[in-house]
Amino acid sequence: MAPSVREAMEPYWTEHFMLPGQTHPGASAVAEAVEQAREQVAKMVGCEGFEIVFTSGGTEANNLAVLGLAKRYGGGHIVVSALEHESVWQAVESLSPRTWRIDVAAVDSQGRVDPKTLESLLREETRMVCVQLASPVLGARQPIREIADLCHSHGIPLHCDATQAFGKIPVDIRTLRADTLALSAHKMYGPKGCGALYVRRGFSLAPVLYGESREMGLRPGSENVPAWVGFGAAAKLVDRCVTDAMARMHELRDRLQDRLLSQISPAPRVLCQRADSLPNTLVMELEREICRIARRARGVVFSMPRSLLPADEGTRSLRALGIGEAELRRCCSFSLGWTTSQEQIDTAADLFAEAYDHG
Amino acid sequence: MAPSVREAMEPYWTEHFMLPGQTHPGASAVAEAVEQAREQVAKMVGCEGFEIVFTSGGTEANNLAVLGLAKRYGGGHIVVSALEHESVWQAVESLSPRTWRIDVAAVDSQGRVDPKTLESLLREETRMVCVQLASPVLGARQPIREIADLCHSHGIPLHCDATQAFGKIPVDIRTLRADTLALSAHKMYGPKGCGALYVRRGFSLAPVLYGESREMGLRPGSENVPAWVGFGAAAKLVDRCVTDAMARMHELRDRLQDRLLSQISPAPRVLCQRADSLPNTLVMELEREICRIARRARGVVFSMPRSLLPADEGTRSLRALGIGEAELRRCCSFSLGWTTSQEQIDTAADLFAEAYDHG
Repeated sequence: MAPSVREAMEPYWTEHFMLPGQTHPGASAVAEAVEQAREQVAKMVGCEGFEIVFTSGGTEANNLAVLGLAKRYGGGHIVVSALEHESVWQAVESLSPRTWRIDVAAVDSQGRVDPKTLESLLREETRMVCVQLASPVLGARQPIREIADLCHSHGIPLHCDATQAFGKIPVDIRTLRADTLALSAHKMYGPKGCGALYVRRGFSLAPVLYGESREMGLRPGSENVPAWVGFGAAAKLVDRCVTDAMARMHELRDRLQDRLLSQISPAPRVLCQRADSLPNTLVMELEREICRIARRARGVVFSMPRSLLPADEGTRSLRALGIGEAELRRCCSFSLGWTTSQEQIDTAADLFAEAYDHG
Repeated sequence: MAPSVREAMEPYWTEHFMLPGQTHPGASAVAEAVEQAREQVAKMVGCEGFEIVFTSGGTEANNLAVLGLAKRYGGGHIVVSALEHESVWQAVESLSPRTWRIDVAAVDSQGRVDPKTLESLLREETRMVCVQLASPVLGARQPIREIADLCHSHGIPLHCDATQAFGKIPVDIRTLRADTLALSAHKMYGPKGCGALYVRRGFSLAPVLYGESREMGLRPGSENVPAWVGFGAAAKLVDRCVTDAMARMHELRDRLQDRLLSQISPAPRVLCQRADSLPNTLVMELEREICRIARRARGVVFSMPRSLLPADEGTRSLRALGIGEAELRRCCSFSLGWTTSQEQIDTAADLFAEAYDHG
């Protein structure tokens, strides 16, 4: 969490402890802080404040988008990309198979959903398409604008899980044109336990949780004031810094890639390497099983497919590239952040290469 | 939020930023902190750690209990008390009227659910009974143990919303014997955006939100580590202080009552005054409309029925006592906390009495 986020949250733990809806004068200051935070998040997204619904995280935001739209219909057809996060994937899978049919949009060898292929899956009864903006596993970015335009030309709404993109690349909903967009605060230096769903003006969703009417009637429960204020501060920070941070992460990611390619023999195969990939993600297939390297290189945090059955997001994403079961065990993904230093990159490459030699 | 809670949360914002499930060694410390917090909450509740499911608040906990149980059945019959919080009430109301029938258990003039009356509502197809432990509006406490025993004698599970009771009275699930019990951290000096559901060992619920499997498979999403650690610290505090705090709040509540009765003429009618009521709640019916007093006594925080249509929890609770529409506008409820001082009580009584005279 960024220091400025922490600082922004401070007064809302004890001093300003009230809730926005209370009648005491002290509650007005809290209500104002919450609305300012909403405006800050809206500015980052490129939308209006009333289009932002605060949630307890990206998972709840994705659930609200998927289940909240599904509740409007008795059944129908949904298309999801093969790379979706568990919270989209499982929410879609939870829908009754008696009334809902699901199609999975495949990706190419670079992890990209082809809009034309996706279009061929659309039917008269398609109620929703879900495509993430960028994959945390592969770094692959999807052509959301193109997909949104073709969905809309068929009268179908698009939900876009953008939790992995904020803070890494500039995101503007006016360009993307998705109908709903999921955000997660802790993925962009904000607090844990906090997220939001952008809901396009006039777009109709049903709530998933019930209680006192809050958040435009879409999400009940007492407002998590400190977290929302922190999310606003993080959005302000991201708005200001994302372009510079992106350039720097890109440079360091390339450095890590160069180092690993030269230090590991035989050289790893770099996957999903496109100019528009997330600047902080590097995914590789090596010649050795990754779990043995992981045990030695414990100082380096990287992710690998953890569960082959049932498949998790990592496993599903790699399989979607056409990677077989044996190669799957030799793949891993590195993620960089705003505070990653050149020194850390060099150390990580050395530690990883050393672990590889002994793996 | 209590200072010790804030202090306990501190290291988990930046220093220990990892998530419990990550493979890095730094994640183990975080996993341990989360499990310690779970044990602290469990100790307060009187249960085992694995019976505690962390949520984003009391609202989500109530939704998980009601909707998570309803999902196990295609339909049936549910009994709820007339005093339930919106998150129980609306969750029950959200169930399809084609397959679910709802009965409301009335309360007596003291706001108490009579177990015998409740029993008369139970049917062969009753799937669930929901009765809160204590009402934040009336202070009335329900005979949960008696209700649990009679529900169980019919093979029906009991959900108890106990969000308003922790920190005010000692609560022990071994005495209460409800099957699920909802908690809210910010109602007991813990952080906002955090709650829990006690789920009795072996009791089966379906999740309401979907994603990566967390919290015994009942609640997905990245762990809100700082909040959960804070909830644990608050539970420790409540465990140690609730008996003393209860005695003190009782004394101050009685003082407020005495003062208001002597300073306001004609003397207000005190509602739901029983020896076992919440020690921090005072509810009164006055001879004047409360909204006019509220406008003048803005330094005193008290609650009044805000919405007559649709009825909110306050309105429903007062109506359940048999209070008519005109009297409803003359009722208000005062709540005290651990930090309420005798001086504040005296000032509040003076301000309120003065506002009453001018109201």
